[in-house]
Amino acid sequence: MRTTNLAVVLRFVRTHAPCSRADIAASTGLNKATVSSLVTDLLERRLLRETGLTENRIGRPASMLTLQSRPYAAIGIELAADHLVAIAVDLTGERLLTWRRAYPGLDGTAGRAEAAVAALAGRVVAKMAAQERRVLGLTVGAPGLVAPGGGVRFAPHLGRTELELGAALERGLRHPEYDVVIDSAANLAALAEHRIGAEADTPNMLTLIGDVEIGAGIVADGRTLRGARGFAGQAGHLQVDCAGPRCRCGRHGCLEAVAGLPALVRRALPDTVRDGPVTDFAPELERITALAGNGDAHVTAALAETGRLLGRGVSMLAELLDPQVVVLGGSFAALARWLLPAVEAELASRVAVPGDPGCRVTASTLHPDAAALGGAMLALDRLEDGKLPAPAA
Amino acid sequence: MRTTNLAVVLRFVRTHAPCSRADIAASTGLNKATVSSLVTDLLERRLLRETGLTENRIGRPASMLTLQSRPYAAIGIELAADHLVAIAVDLTGERLLTWRRAYPGLDGTAGRAEAAVAALAGRVVAKMAAQERRVLGLTVGAPGLVAPGGGVRFAPHLGRTELELGAALERGLRHPEYDVVIDSAANLAALAEHRIGAEADTPNMLTLIGDVEIGAGIVADGRTLRGARGFAGQAGHLQVDCAGPRCRCGRHGCLEAVAGLPALVRRALPDTVRDGPVTDFAPELERITALAGNGDAHVTAALAETGRLLGRGVSMLAELLDPQVVVLGGSFAALARWLLPAVEAELASRVAVPGDPGCRVTASTLHPDAAALGGAMLALDRLEDGKLPAPAA
Repeated sequence: MRTTNLAVVLRFVRTHAPCSRADIAASTGLNKATVSSLVTDLLERRLLRETGLTENRIGRPASMLTLQSRPYAAIGIELAADHLVAIAVDLTGERLLTWRRAYPGLDGTAGRAEAAVAALAGRVVAKMAAQERRVLGLTVGAPGLVAPGGGVRFAPHLGRTELELGAALERGLRHPEYDVVIDSAANLAALAEHRIGAEADTPNMLTLIGDVEIGAGIVADGRTLRGARGFAGQAGHLQVDCAGPRCRCGRHGCLEAVAGLPALVRRALPDTVRDGPVTDFAPELERITALAGNGDAHVTAALAETGRLLGRGVSMLAELLDPQVVVLGGSFAALARWLLPAVEAELASRVAVPGDPGCRVTASTLHPDAAALGGAMLALDRLEDGKLPAPAA
Repeated sequence: MRTTNLAVVLRFVRTHAPCSRADIAASTGLNKATVSSLVTDLLERRLLRETGLTENRIGRPASMLTLQSRPYAAIGIELAADHLVAIAVDLTGERLLTWRRAYPGLDGTAGRAEAAVAALAGRVVAKMAAQERRVLGLTVGAPGLVAPGGGVRFAPHLGRTELELGAALERGLRHPEYDVVIDSAANLAALAEHRIGAEADTPNMLTLIGDVEIGAGIVADGRTLRGARGFAGQAGHLQVDCAGPRCRCGRHGCLEAVAGLPALVRRALPDTVRDGPVTDFAPELERITALAGNGDAHVTAALAETGRLLGRGVSMLAELLDPQVVVLGGSFAALARWLLPAVEAELASRVAVPGDPGCRVTASTLHPDAAALGGAMLALDRLEDGKLPAPAA
């Protein structure tokens, strides 16, 4: 009960800071003595601090409370098919660190993904320790299907059908006292978009991450839709073209197979593919962006065709889930200028409500950090679920 | 505040009856004097009654409370493409009346659907009045996209793109004091399945209604997923076969076009179709069931092919939403014996988690009443949202 109330107070201050003890009591329904005791506890745990300012309202002046920006950190890491991103934030959500690493995930050597993520996590944790910050939690966003317990099932673009990320991180970080959680990268990106993206606070929104893999993070009525086993959002394997190429999942014409980065590169830069398999898509993505920016007809046609096929998938998602907005994240965000007109045209031609404007489609403003940022936010959220650090010794 | 507390007490009794005032106070956190006053109010409104029994526990005997089975009724009506169902229940959820009517909705005369529903509603309300029951609320489940306010957009199988059901009912029932609400039939069926179906209380479940039209009711984390405009669940227009026939929506190979009743009848009973357009599918459905029951090879093959295509749609839904179970409702329920093996085979071949059993598929046990029953339940739920009848004069 006390833990719940501590979390209630913390959540209130997180949303309303700076605020007084009286503000907390008035809004939470807790009595003033209880609030005072809870605030003292949170001050001792160094989660809150007094601003030193007071506010004069009717009655006596009240000391104002806010979140401690020190001495804590929360960490989010995204494991994508060809790169890693690590982000640390303080308790107020301010960014402390952003690291991006190319990562040749496609070669699929056993244990390589786990080792790379564990090594990067270890370096971020060490950096936080050097700043005398205690880590409150770490969340890793992975592609594929993330099972409860941190196993990743079916991540074909990582060359594997099973990754034991949770166990590898526990070992690599030497069984840390903070929580290590594995979640779907699309869910984490959707969380970040829902909190601080350009479409923040839209109750029904989808975030469609497109890189080598395509996945959806679904927010319905303000909450992440995870499904029974946490496997919801596998939009990459919606069939959008029966006559399309074979997908790594074994089927044909999946959204991912026709609109993921490898398909775009094959379509836009056929010469590149002849040089051998691509494992790091960043240079190709830059080349496509540069050529499209110069109006290259072949590349812009390839982007329009990709947008048209992407639009088919977006239409299916829109009809099933009726979001206000679909946010295109991952590489789709960088290519949105060329993809969006075709996506919107396809959506307009397919969504079947005459005269209804239907859902909007926009580009992520948080790309390429959305998933890692969402991971750090999720670690902070767990504080509000009662996972509070012990008071300072 | 008092209205909220009345609803809290009513909800508690609805779930826990028979129970005492002390039970209510202990579980709701309301103090005993408040509970006593609220119970008196609910007794005066004839929503609760005292059972006359007392329970002896430690302390003095307590009089037990339960819901009034009289003098109220809640009504649900389903408007399907070729039939109407009306159900009335009392406050405890016991069924008072079940009426089914064939309805030639497909001819599409303007105002006909509205008039038929309003006439049926009027007869049910009159019947309840004859039993001296007051109507607490009426919900109509419609196919297509139901807009807030009771307009139905895009109901092509009713031959119309707009139905003004809400307004027609308000007029037909002479602006009743109780609420008249229009919702999607699939949402209402999903509500009934989630409450009292064979898979009741499964937090993540889909109800896929298949008749002339196909629609999904989505329950995620125990709540109906409605989307931004209430249009979620348009599973009927998932494209499952690019080479499939043209759908009434103008596209090709939609789930509804390849696995709805008209497609099944064309496949199983090609002679029937040569006789002219079918408007009432009940006789055809009976013939198909009888032939399949006798092992007719052509008809069972047609059912298996329908099941295979249905399975493609179910697979897409399962990957996006990760339900524990998909309940097949509408005519699919009556045909489940022949459809299910093909649906399950398709699902097993497509859902991409090696070794994972994935989601189950079962037949509705509430068919053909699920949507009307869900409508009546939704009308009762609105009591708990504070829409209480006034005390008896």
